[in-house]
Amino acid sequence: MDSMIILPGGANVSYHSLEKVRQNALLSALTDGQFYSLMKKAKLIELDDGDHLFMQGDEAKRFFIVLQGSIKFFRLTSGGKETVINVFGEQDPVGEAAMFMAEKHYPANAMAIKSAAVLSICCQDYLQLLHQSYESCFGILGSMASRLKRSISDIEVLTQQSAVHRVAHFILSLIDEKSPDPVVVRLPATKQLIASRLAMQPETLSRVMRELKEKELLDVQGRNLTIHSVAGLKRLIQ
Amino acid sequence: MDSMIILPGGANVSYHSLEKVRQNALLSALTDGQFYSLMKKAKLIELDDGDHLFMQGDEAKRFFIVLQGSIKFFRLTSGGKETVINVFGEQDPVGEAAMFMAEKHYPANAMAIKSAAVLSICCQDYLQLLHQSYESCFGILGSMASRLKRSISDIEVLTQQSAVHRVAHFILSLIDEKSPDPVVVRLPATKQLIASRLAMQPETLSRVMRELKEKELLDVQGRNLTIHSVAGLKRLIQ
Repeated sequence: MDSMIILPGGANVSYHSLEKVRQNALLSALTDGQFYSLMKKAKLIELDDGDHLFMQGDEAKRFFIVLQGSIKFFRLTSGGKETVINVFGEQDPVGEAAMFMAEKHYPANAMAIKSAAVLSICCQDYLQLLHQSYESCFGILGSMASRLKRSISDIEVLTQQSAVHRVAHFILSLIDEKSPDPVVVRLPATKQLIASRLAMQPETLSRVMRELKEKELLDVQGRNLTIHSVAGLKRLIQ
Repeated sequence: MDSMIILPGGANVSYHSLEKVRQNALLSALTDGQFYSLMKKAKLIELDDGDHLFMQGDEAKRFFIVLQGSIKFFRLTSGGKETVINVFGEQDPVGEAAMFMAEKHYPANAMAIKSAAVLSICCQDYLQLLHQSYESCFGILGSMASRLKRSISDIEVLTQQSAVHRVAHFILSLIDEKSPDPVVVRLPATKQLIASRLAMQPETLSRVMRELKEKELLDVQGRNLTIHSVAGLKRLIQ
C-alpha cells in the first residue's frame, strides 16, 4: 500500500498521488521547497457523484488538480440546457485559467461525474510562486496553449453540420490519424456525455455509431472503440 | 498625418500604430528598451484580400499582431470544407499560442479577409524577453485565458441544436446582457463568415434574422445590429 501524507485539512493523500501531482505541468518546475510550501496550504476535497466543485460566476480564489475520478466542466442556460465544455480526468487542472482572466470568476460549473478527489490550491499562493519561477509560467502557458488547441478541434467538430460528420470528426480527434489500422481507443466519457458534447441526442449518437458499425468502419464494446479503417472514416467527412 | 517609423524591412509604420501595438497585453509590460529591440527585428507584412499569412502545420517561428484589417483563422477538411475558428482584428495577436505548444506548429490557417497589415515578431526573440519580464508572462497568460473563455462561449453557442438558438446565443454573446434596451452592436464579421462560424448556411442565418426581426426583437442595417429586447432574445433560448 502507498504511504500516506497528511494534508493540513487532516486528509490522507498517498505519497504516490502527490508524486504524480508533482509532475503536473503547472507544478513540475517548482523547487521542492516551493512545492511543499504550496502543498502545506493545499486542501484535499472528496466529491460524490453529482457534487459541485464550483459554480459558474463564483469568485475564482482556488484552482484544482484532479487526483482521482472525473470532473465535468459545463454551462447551464437559463432554461436548464447543459453544455459540456470538457471532462477532466486525473492530473488535469480545473479552473486554473480563471486566475488570469480580468474578472477572476469561473466561466462555467464544475461537478464530479463519479466520486472524485481533487487537490485544491490557493490561487494567490500559486501566483506568488509563479513570480519566482519562469519555468512554471512556461508550464502553465504550455498547458493553456494545448487547451486552446483542443478547443480549436472541438469547434471544428461542432461546426460539422451532419451528425455523421460530427461523430467521425470527434473519433478522428481521439487518435493519431497516421496510425495503422486497427486502432483501439478508450472513449473519454460516457455516451450520454459525448452526445451532449457533440450537440446531439444520445439516440442520434447510438444510431450513427450503428451505421458506422454496419459500414464495418468500427466496433464499440462498452467504452472501448476499435477503429477498423481510419481512411474510411476520413473519406466519410470529405 | 501620423509621423512614420521605418522598420528594418524598409516599411513605414505610423508612430501612432506602433504606440497602439505597445499597449498590447503581450507587449505592454516590456521596458522601452526591450520593446524597441523587439521592434528592430520585427517585420511589417502587408496582405491583400485572400493572401495567406500562414498554413496549418507550418512551423511556428513567428507570431503576429494585426495593425490593420482582419485575419481569418480557419481549418480546412481534406474535402475542402472550411471551419472559421476566429476572426482577428486590430491589436489581436495571431498564432502566438503555438509557441507554447509541444509541437510548435500552427494549428490552423490564417488568411487576410480584406487588405491587412500585420507586425511579424520572431518567437525566439519574444521568448527570450519573456524570461526577463514576469509581467509580460502574465500579460500573455491573461490574453490566452480570455481566449479560452471565449472558446467556452463559442462551444456553448455551437452546441445549441436549432439555428434560432445558435443565432440568439451568438447575439447575446456580443453584448453585456445587463444593458438596458435597445442595444446597438456592430457585427464582428460579414454575414457569410458568421454563418460559417455558426455552422449554418448563409440563407439560414438570413432567415433566422428575418424571423427575429418579425418578432420585433432586433433590426439589422448593414453591419449594425439593434437589439430591441435582450429579455426577448433570452426567452427564446430558454
